[in-house]
Amino acid sequence: MKQKLTLHPHRLFSSDSVQREIAAGLYEQIRDLPIISPHGHTDPEWFATNDNFPDPAHLFITPDHYVFRMLYSQGVTLENLGVPRQDGGWTEQDPRKIWRLFAEHYPLFRGTPSRGWLDYVFATVFDLDVQLSAETADHYYDVIDEQLKTDAFRPRALMDRFNIEKIATTEMATDPLTHHASMKKDGYLSRVVTTFRPDDVVDPEKAGFAGALERLGEITGEDITIWDGYLAALRNRRAFFKEHGATATDHGHVTANTANFDRAACEALWETVRSGKATPAEAELFRGQMLTEMAGMSLEDGLTMQIHAGSFRNHNARLFDKFGADKGADIPLQTDYVHALKPLLDRYGNEPALTVILFTLDETVYSRELATLAGHYPCLRLGPPWWFHDSPEGMLRFRHQVTETAGFYNTVGFNDDTRAFLSIPARHDVARRIDCRFLAQLVAEHRLGEDEAAEVAKDLTYNLVKKAYRFD
Amino acid sequence: MKQKLTLHPHRLFSSDSVQREIAAGLYEQIRDLPIISPHGHTDPEWFATNDNFPDPAHLFITPDHYVFRMLYSQGVTLENLGVPRQDGGWTEQDPRKIWRLFAEHYPLFRGTPSRGWLDYVFATVFDLDVQLSAETADHYYDVIDEQLKTDAFRPRALMDRFNIEKIATTEMATDPLTHHASMKKDGYLSRVVTTFRPDDVVDPEKAGFAGALERLGEITGEDITIWDGYLAALRNRRAFFKEHGATATDHGHVTANTANFDRAACEALWETVRSGKATPAEAELFRGQMLTEMAGMSLEDGLTMQIHAGSFRNHNARLFDKFGADKGADIPLQTDYVHALKPLLDRYGNEPALTVILFTLDETVYSRELATLAGHYPCLRLGPPWWFHDSPEGMLRFRHQVTETAGFYNTVGFNDDTRAFLSIPARHDVARRIDCRFLAQLVAEHRLGEDEAAEVAKDLTYNLVKKAYRFD
Amino acid sequence: MKQKLTLHPHRLFSSDSVQREIAAGLYEQIRDLPIISPHGHTDPEWFATNDNFPDPAHLFITPDHYVFRMLYSQGVTLENLGVPRQDGGWTEQDPRKIWRLFAEHYPLFRGTPSRGWLDYVFATVFDLDVQLSAETADHYYDVIDEQLKTDAFRPRALMDRFNIEKIATTEMATDPLTHHASMKKDGYLSRVVTTFRPDDVVDPEKAGFAGALERLGEITGEDITIWDGYLAALRNRRAFFKEHGATATDHGHVTANTANFDRAACEALWETVRSGKATPAEAELFRGQMLTEMAGMSLEDGLTMQIHAGSFRNHNARLFDKFGADKGADIPLQTDYVHALKPLLDRYGNEPALTVILFTLDETVYSRELATLAGHYPCLRLGPPWWFHDSPEGMLRFRHQVTETAGFYNTVGFNDDTRAFLSIPARHDVARRIDCRFLAQLVAEHRLGEDEAAEVAKDLTYNLVKKAYRFD
Repeated sequence: MKQKLTLHPHRLFSSDSVQREIAAGLYEQIRDLPIISPHGHTDPEWFATNDNFPDPAHLFITPDHYVFRMLYSQGVTLENLGVPRQDGGWTEQDPRKIWRLFAEHYPLFRGTPSRGWLDYVFATVFDLDVQLSAETADHYYDVIDEQLKTDAFRPRALMDRFNIEKIATTEMATDPLTHHASMKKDGYLSRVVTTFRPDDVVDPEKAGFAGALERLGEITGEDITIWDGYLAALRNRRAFFKEHGATATDHGHVTANTANFDRAACEALWETVRSGKATPAEAELFRGQMLTEMAGMSLEDGLTMQIHAGSFRNHNARLFDKFGADKGADIPLQTDYVHALKPLLDRYGNEPALTVILFTLDETVYSRELATLAGHYPCLRLGPPWWFHDSPEGMLRFRHQVTETAGFYNTVGFNDDTRAFLSIPARHDVARRIDCRFLAQLVAEHRLGEDEAAEVAKDLTYNLVKKAYRFD
Repeated sequence: MKQKLTLHPHRLFSSDSVQREIAAGLYEQIRDLPIISPHGHTDPEWFATNDNFPDPAHLFITPDHYVFRMLYSQGVTLENLGVPRQDGGWTEQDPRKIWRLFAEHYPLFRGTPSRGWLDYVFATVFDLDVQLSAETADHYYDVIDEQLKTDAFRPRALMDRFNIEKIATTEMATDPLTHHASMKKDGYLSRVVTTFRPDDVVDPEKAGFAGALERLGEITGEDITIWDGYLAALRNRRAFFKEHGATATDHGHVTANTANFDRAACEALWETVRSGKATPAEAELFRGQMLTEMAGMSLEDGLTMQIHAGSFRNHNARLFDKFGADKGADIPLQTDYVHALKPLLDRYGNEPALTVILFTLDETVYSRELATLAGHYPCLRLGPPWWFHDSPEGMLRFRHQVTETAGFYNTVGFNDDTRAFLSIPARHDVARRIDCRFLAQLVAEHRLGEDEAAEVAKDLTYNLVKKAYRFD
Repeated sequence: MKQKLTLHPHRLFSSDSVQREIAAGLYEQIRDLPIISPHGHTDPEWFATNDNFPDPAHLFITPDHYVFRMLYSQGVTLENLGVPRQDGGWTEQDPRKIWRLFAEHYPLFRGTPSRGWLDYVFATVFDLDVQLSAETADHYYDVIDEQLKTDAFRPRALMDRFNIEKIATTEMATDPLTHHASMKKDGYLSRVVTTFRPDDVVDPEKAGFAGALERLGEITGEDITIWDGYLAALRNRRAFFKEHGATATDHGHVTANTANFDRAACEALWETVRSGKATPAEAELFRGQMLTEMAGMSLEDGLTMQIHAGSFRNHNARLFDKFGADKGADIPLQTDYVHALKPLLDRYGNEPALTVILFTLDETVYSRELATLAGHYPCLRLGPPWWFHDSPEGMLRFRHQVTETAGFYNTVGFNDDTRAFLSIPARHDVARRIDCRFLAQLVAEHRLGEDEAAEVAKDLTYNLVKKAYRFD
């Protein structure tokens, strides 16, 4: 039996009638605000070339580890889902077969955010009105595939339709930023900016580090064999990224550890690292020192700094060998911030001109560490719930655990952090609804006035994002 | 004043009228499903001999650490509660005096799951209609004691009355399984099966390890002085347990650490362990290696593997000396799974034919580690909230924190894990109600369709249990 | 536009109509019970001299790190808020200017407990009926300042108005207790008692330790150069504090670590510590041993023992240099209790005559460690949510996570722990409302009878506090 697909106007609000009405009223005031997407992993080529997206399977399934990891966890192979193999071995090529396999397993997503995002896209972007199932798989495939080929589904048309005012992509330090350069020429850089992510040249344990360093030296013309030259090269690239719209940097480290060595120690550490002789402990110290250096450069050039810490990347060794990175096998780690950030904070923590946005995959630090640190240090702000926690329950836990100590104004609104462009409105809609739901509870329990809640809702949706990411 | 004892038909559902109605509707569809109890600690002798249970005190109080630890925490001695002493010293023998002492302190259980279970048993099993208190203690004692002596209260009659389709007990590797053998003869093994728990012969730090090893060698006729002989002896016992109904193994370790050594290293480690010379660190490595070996054997023989990690057993040294183990002094530990399980997962993690069910006493790992691991690895499933967390709040936290990342289908329904046979229907009823409550919230907030929720409720109550424990 | 300031009679209750009505009924039965404030940091001089408080800024802002840290986190300098500098450098002196700066930033407190406390004080103590804002700042200042000068606002008048039956202050071991002595003379010691906090003489890493030790020897006439003399000096001071009303001790350590050495080891450790040669590890062992010694002395003299563990004090080094301690830069640490407390519990854990109240800043231990320890050991009780967690959400998390395992009767009611005297009724009111809210949920979900809930509400508000702190 085909089930109707509908999106209830009050979805994600509390079912308590008092709270629901307040939430709906707050939401009405922010639902049409433009989307600001200050951090994510969409491909700049989409926006530069404005080409159509591929078929449904290669749009929704094969590139999205949120989706295929769930099927994998229940015994479906990645080959059958069309995920490319590193060794070029067989993987399903027929997009319709991949789509059908996905559709059959759609019940696995019950209760997950992926289900909510997908249904939102199916209903609002593709006007589908029955639920996805084995039975409706072909109907879905045909309807989506047909629309994807039209001009109305080109990236820039969707940017307008989705009301995305500004979106940031993320590129490594040695990236040539070709697509942003092209958008600079045609004026689209006002809407699609880059973000400076220097992991490739600051993490000695990253595959390809030596090569990336070499390129860094070549591109910038700096003598990276000495500490000062290396720092100058980084400054050079930061300036280049700023010219291509960047207002922020991003740092993806396993820990949040920072260090604060003196010049001589830094020079010695750099010599060790550069020569490829760093032990894991030295590599960790170096990454930590570089976070502090990046904070210092942010004070100079005004780039907001983002720290995404605490993911054990590629936990599944065999899967990594076969399929490479980003295959749904990155597992969160318990993460310390109190000791880890102290060296950076000792040096720059009291600078109100610096903005460091913290992200975590370890929810136990929300009330204990992140809220208390951000509720004191002028430079610290809290990023929204990240990755696995970018979900209704995750967002509620974040607001419930963070707000009392850090308030609303030490947070920075929502990040979709996605490579799935079509899901962006869905994700922002969840965040807006959950923020309104949380605020509605405060209002219904007489902990906050309704007019104040409306002001906060607008700030969380729009103003705090622009301020934190300096999009003004 | 005597207070009426009643069980409200909507107990444990949300008081929100929208959610309550949905929850009641879902519950109506699963309340009469048979109970599957795939993991617990009931005594197989009960089911084999079908003898009547003893008096109320020795049924409800002296064997139940959930109950007497609460009174102990408020200064009541275990001797006065009739808990047997190791040294044979005085302990109260009069069951009525024990019962009265318990009844006087019944208010201590307000807000605890024990209170809910006990009231359920009093009301539904013994038809009591006033609340337990000092005043009603004797009435309770008489009513319960009288019924316990009747045929209707023999274990097999209660199995039928409780609608228990299948129950698993837990026995150590060297157990002769006498009672299961007797049930095999009379056909009752179809309802009461054993579980293979080899802690006695894989944990070098367990009291009696050397003796248990010696018995293992004798029983199996294998040469356990060599690694291969030891493994063969374990395979032999697994087969013996399978013949007595076992479909699962169970492993109670302090940590979830696993190891994955090569053959030579295993042989050397075994030599050290067998000779009684293992250091604590070597003992830990050995236990870890044995979890990986057990996973390998599970792939061979199809037994589902359960890991119960993270209890600091017998934390109270003086109490342990006086009264022995399982006296309410086992305290949960912070427990890592991400690093701990990696060696086992590196070897067997991608095998869909293997089922490893994880349990924890550390709720901080639900969203951070367990949901993300189970939401990726094909072999992993999440056991229900365990022990202290087998409670309304504990179950709600589990579903709220696990579902968005792992979904429902990487969980395995409910385990009562109890030695208190009469409480089994009460415990399963709590789990069913809380699952319906959680699903009702999703429905009321338009995050899941009501028809889908009904399907999930049935799966959580019955189908997923049978599938995970291979009871088909 | 000026917004009305009103306190809704149902604030902090659930907006669910069923729960709200029950909560209101429970609250009605406890709202007028006297306040017992068994732990806090009010200044005994206030109660001894009964002098008027200073102006609004120096009453509400400059001494309250809950308040000024939030403005500091958003770039307001502590100098501009009038916080005194260690070096005597410039800091704002004009209380009206400080007040205006605070008023301008009042929106930062939306959703925080500080906002709730402040509004409560403004509305109920000063009869203000518009909300604080930049626009109403001067009106507020004038209204508050005028009333503060009247006799009705002297400390003892407020003690009566606030219905505070008993309040405990906290003094270091070498404090002369001058003000308590004066209150002993005039009879006010029946309402204002001291608490023995020996951190100054048991923590070798505390600034001024050597000097404090010397004073300890002088005051008591004991030979503190030997272990026995040192212990005798501590016994002497405990007796002196008891004479000044103390019924409890308090211990503020970075960790909850305890130790249980034999006499010879203690003597050797004391020699090391006394001579100023203790390493950080030895200092930690010494603090741990002293917790165990204090537990032993509590068994002798009946003082209840409080352990406040887990704060990384003065995390912001530059701020500490400039402004000293207690400036909103104390950050919670992950804290272990299971291993940490074992030495103390091995020695005294089974003594029902001992009361040790545990506090934490690490909420992850509520269900895992604290509830399970307190639900077993006769000497352990759980203090209320502390500091950052003394808030509506924090209190709810505490009850939800602790009650099922520890019950209500292993908790000890509320502590305001404040130096902000005027906020005391506000804080107790929050605790009473949240306890009633939590109980109302249990009643509405048929997990507890309404009559039992009413009894528990009274116990949590009044009886358990008096019992735990031995105020009978």
